[in-house]
Amino acid sequence: VSSVSPRVGARRPGGRSARIRDAVLAATAEVLAEAGYDGLSIEAVAARAGVHKTTVYRRWPTKAELIAETTRERSQQYVPVPDTGSLAGDLTALARAVVGNIGSEIGTNMTRTLVAASSTSREVAEVTAAFWAERLDLTAGIIDRAIERGELPARSDAHLILETLIGPLYVRLLLTGEPIDASFADRVAALVAAGATAGGRS
Amino acid sequence: VSSVSPRVGARRPGGRSARIRDAVLAATAEVLAEAGYDGLSIEAVAARAGVHKTTVYRRWPTKAELIAETTRERSQQYVPVPDTGSLAGDLTALARAVVGNIGSEIGTNMTRTLVAASSTSREVAEVTAAFWAERLDLTAGIIDRAIERGELPARSDAHLILETLIGPLYVRLLLTGEPIDASFADRVAALVAAGATAGGRS
Repeated sequence: VSSVSPRVGARRPGGRSARIRDAVLAATAEVLAEAGYDGLSIEAVAARAGVHKTTVYRRWPTKAELIAETTRERSQQYVPVPDTGSLAGDLTALARAVVGNIGSEIGTNMTRTLVAASSTSREVAEVTAAFWAERLDLTAGIIDRAIERGELPARSDAHLILETLIGPLYVRLLLTGEPIDASFADRVAALVAAGATAGGRS
Repeated sequence: VSSVSPRVGARRPGGRSARIRDAVLAATAEVLAEAGYDGLSIEAVAARAGVHKTTVYRRWPTKAELIAETTRERSQQYVPVPDTGSLAGDLTALARAVVGNIGSEIGTNMTRTLVAASSTSREVAEVTAAFWAERLDLTAGIIDRAIERGELPARSDAHLILETLIGPLYVRLLLTGEPIDASFADRVAALVAAGATAGGRS
């Protein structure tokens, strides 16, 4: 985690451009987690990633663009959309992955600092809203597949089910300060899966 | 909303001391919502409430104490613990009340600014955690009564059910930026009530 041993030199597939992208996005997450939104600057990210700042400016001209791509990248990496073959399995896998992502020290700090920045920066609020809209649409595949399997009624509200699944995880992270772990993720998933399934019987 | 017509002069039951308390707590909520945590000062609250700052310092020596009492007071006022006679009724009433509280302009801004401050101030984080612990314990009466009525199994996890109920409301407020209204509250409550009830059958 220093520019002495630049990350761009790490062996990663995809060539130099992809390596620079990986290094810059990882550096953005670290700087955000450590210094908060106000401490995030293109210069700080470039220094942390071990690249020249014009390299960063060229591809990510604003803090908001850096944040948008970093958030999307971390989600794809840490919270892939599961396809286990059952609604309960998918919701459990998803809740556990979210816990793994936002429960890590860097994930916790990043989430808190972005929520805080959303309340003062319209640009960050817009980036965050766009991220979540895309994220919920993507993850709705879980509900679509459960409907196709006949586990859920066709009229099921995918966003409602997914928001209710992740809700208590973020409540603990942002409001109560209670710990989140795999066991909590499992219990939330079981409750929401039962509720979504029972909804079809009513 | 000005100190020209001081709120302490309003006709409210409870005498002068209670009127001062009401005025100071209302002023705290307004200053927090408008100026954020950094803009909150005992002086600003005293000016807004139309009282002398020593009056505030004497009863609430710190910003954290002001925030703690204001948050508790607003919850008691806007989110009373419902007792409608059924789990679904109680969860629906609770979700609607939370929407009414955090969905108002002052409630939205207060919630966002306190979540933001919790990520940088240990004192605010502790006040917030204590508030939520007390709040969840108090609201657990809903689940206790549902167990007594035989609607829920005795082993039901009250905090889990309540965190899952409020979760999606805060997800929309703090993350997705999607609107929250009574209809959304109703759908969340129906999902969570169904899930909690179905859990007893498994």
